[in-house]
Formats: sequence, structure tokens, C-alpha cells
Amino acid sequence: MSERLHTQISFLLEIDQLKQVFRQTYLLDESRKENDAEHSWHFAMFAVLLVEYANEKVDLLKVVKMALVHDLVEIDAGDTFLYDVAGNADKAEREEKAAKRIFGLLPPDVGPELHDLWIEFEAKETPEAKFAGSLDRLQPFLHNIHTQGRAWSEHGISAKQIRERNCVIADGSKRLWDYAVGLIDEAVAQGHVVAE
Amino acid sequence: MSERLHTQISFLLEIDQLKQVFRQTYLLDESRKENDAEHSWHFAMFAVLLVEYANEKVDLLKVVKMALVHDLVEIDAGDTFLYDVAGNADKAEREEKAAKRIFGLLPPDVGPELHDLWIEFEAKETPEAKFAGSLDRLQPFLHNIHTQGRAWSEHGISAKQIRERNCVIADGSKRLWDYAVGLIDEAVAQGHVVAE
Repeated sequence: MSERLHTQISFLLEIDQLKQVFRQTYLLDESRKENDAEHSWHFAMFAVLLVEYANEKVDLLKVVKMALVHDLVEIDAGDTFLYDVAGNADKAEREEKAAKRIFGLLPPDVGPELHDLWIEFEAKETPEAKFAGSLDRLQPFLHNIHTQGRAWSEHGISAKQIRERNCVIADGSKRLWDYAVGLIDEAVAQGHVVAE
Repeated sequence: MSERLHTQISFLLEIDQLKQVFRQTYLLDESRKENDAEHSWHFAMFAVLLVEYANEKVDLLKVVKMALVHDLVEIDAGDTFLYDVAGNADKAEREEKAAKRIFGLLPPDVGPELHDLWIEFEAKETPEAKFAGSLDRLQPFLHNIHTQGRAWSEHGISAKQIRERNCVIADGSKRLWDYAVGLIDEAVAQGHVVAE
């Protein structure tokens, strides 16, 4: 077998580990928390189904690729809960180191392309990165909303914090953020989330 | 919120159930079997990384979309093990019924498009469907190879059966099937798989 195919297959086997990186978000039936591979698949489906709500015209394949690769760095760096202030302080550093190792496993004409796509996603400057960023927040947000705010209440997260950490959804899709705001207000009214 | 967005979000919540449809394939660390959402993500990554080996030029976005939606029918129909003769006899009927219900949940300009994409994937006639079919076989095949044939030996599957059920990989990628054949021969030589 050629060295190239061997390298590509080795990478595909290496990233199987994403299925063992667990997040704080519960599945909708609340039987367990979800892992990064499942989240990445769901996020990609959000992109396919909700692309019409992006603020700007986006290249769907690029958004889907971002969804597929955006959490690979967590194989080394682990998942950092969105509301974990200390964990988020050194998150960028830990993830950049992981990105170098993981994308570095690929052939030199492929690895840098995916690495750059991940850097673009993190920077949130292009239309695709902004919209992908919206969906990456919206998916766990909806899981929380539809489990009576379970992960939020386990970590003592208030509606104020939820708004502050998720308002970037508007950068990629004003329509989806308006929708999310309505759901937060409802969750507070129903007593599933504390206001402050 | 508009009826349209409500319908799209309801569908995205419904398909969370794919994370609870378990397959016969083990994760590479053998800690547990994998589920359909994880498999679909991994399959989509196979598409992104191995597209250069397709026999014919393919539209990558189409192949990736096929990967993302190809197992949604299993939310209703369950996973059917590739080597289960009885289960495969009525698989098509069970899955067609599931496809009608699941894709029928979407708005009328979206549901039929994804439903048709699934029908195209199942028919294995277009370059995209053939190549997607190859990857859908190659991913669990590699998991078996790299777990010393664990799921195969648990079900008493021989190298002859593995060749018969996976040779369709060649329809989408001769290169990847040549590679797989080498791995089957090696697995037999190492005593991980019985020849017949």
C-alpha cells in the first residue's frame, strides 16, 4: 500500500477517539451525556437543514467540513464546558498544540488545509466560520432547553450567563438568535432556568 | 416563530435518536459498540479524506450529505448486521417505511430532496452513491480488522463471507478494495479470521 493511503487511514483510525470525548450536554432522552463525534454529526445536520438562516451567503461544504473537524483537537485537549471560566482561559493554547499534532498526522497537501479550516472556524471572521459558530452553540443550547435546562442547572448557570455566552449566535444568524432568545425567556418563565 | 423553522428544528431534535441506535462494530479501543451517529460522522470524515480514490469524479458535498443521512431510517428500522441473512431479507421494506415517516417530517421543499438522496444512496447507481457505499463498508471493515476481527468472530463470519459482502467496495473505489483484500489476507494469515 502506498505511504499516502497508509497515512490517511492511520489518521481516520486515530480520530476514532473523538467518540470517547464526552461533553456536558445530555442526549434529549437524558440517558447519558453526548460525545464529540455525535455532536459533530448533529452540528453538520444543523448546517444542512438551517443554511437558509445564515446572515450571509455561505459555502455549505465548507461549513459542514468545519462541523466535522472542529472538535478533533479535543482528542488531546478534552472538552471545555462553555461556562467554565478557568478552563476557557488556557483553552486556546491547549487546542493549538493539539491541532499541530493531530492535523500534522496527515499528508502535507491535506493536513494544513484542514488545520487552516479549524483556525478559520476558531477566528470567527468569515461568513462560514460565523455561521458554523452559531450552530456549534445552538445545538447544545437546544439540548439544554429540551431537557429542562439540565446541564445548566447542574452547573448553576443563569439566563444572564446563557445570553452572554450564546449571543454570538447572532453573528452567524440573527434569525436563529431571535429564536433562541424566545426560548430562554420561556425557560425562565417555566422555572427551568434562574434569571440571574 | 415561523412554522417552517419550527418544523426544521423538530426534525433536528427527532434525529437525536440516531445516537441510541447501536451497531455490531466495536470502537477501536473495544470498550463498547459504536452507534449510528458516530458511524455517520466517521463515514463523512472518510469521504473528506479519501475522495481522491473514487473510481469516478464525485461531488463531495453530495457524498458527505449521503453519509450524514444514510442511517436516519434506522431510528425506526434498527440496525441490520451486514451478515444477517434473515434481517437483510425484509430490510428494504422496513427502511422504506421509515424513510417515508422521517423525511416526511421536513418541509415539502426539503424532505423529498433528502429522501431522494437516501434512495439514490440505496440504489448504488450514481458515482456518488457507489463511492458512499464503499466508505459505508470500509469504515466498519477497518474497525473489525483493527480489533482482531472481534465482531466477525463473535458472529462466526469467515474471510469468504467478508469478501462476498464487501467486494462492492470496488464499485466505488478499486484502490480501496485492493487495499481491503490485502488486509483480509493478512487477518487470515494471523489467525484473526477463519478462511471459510
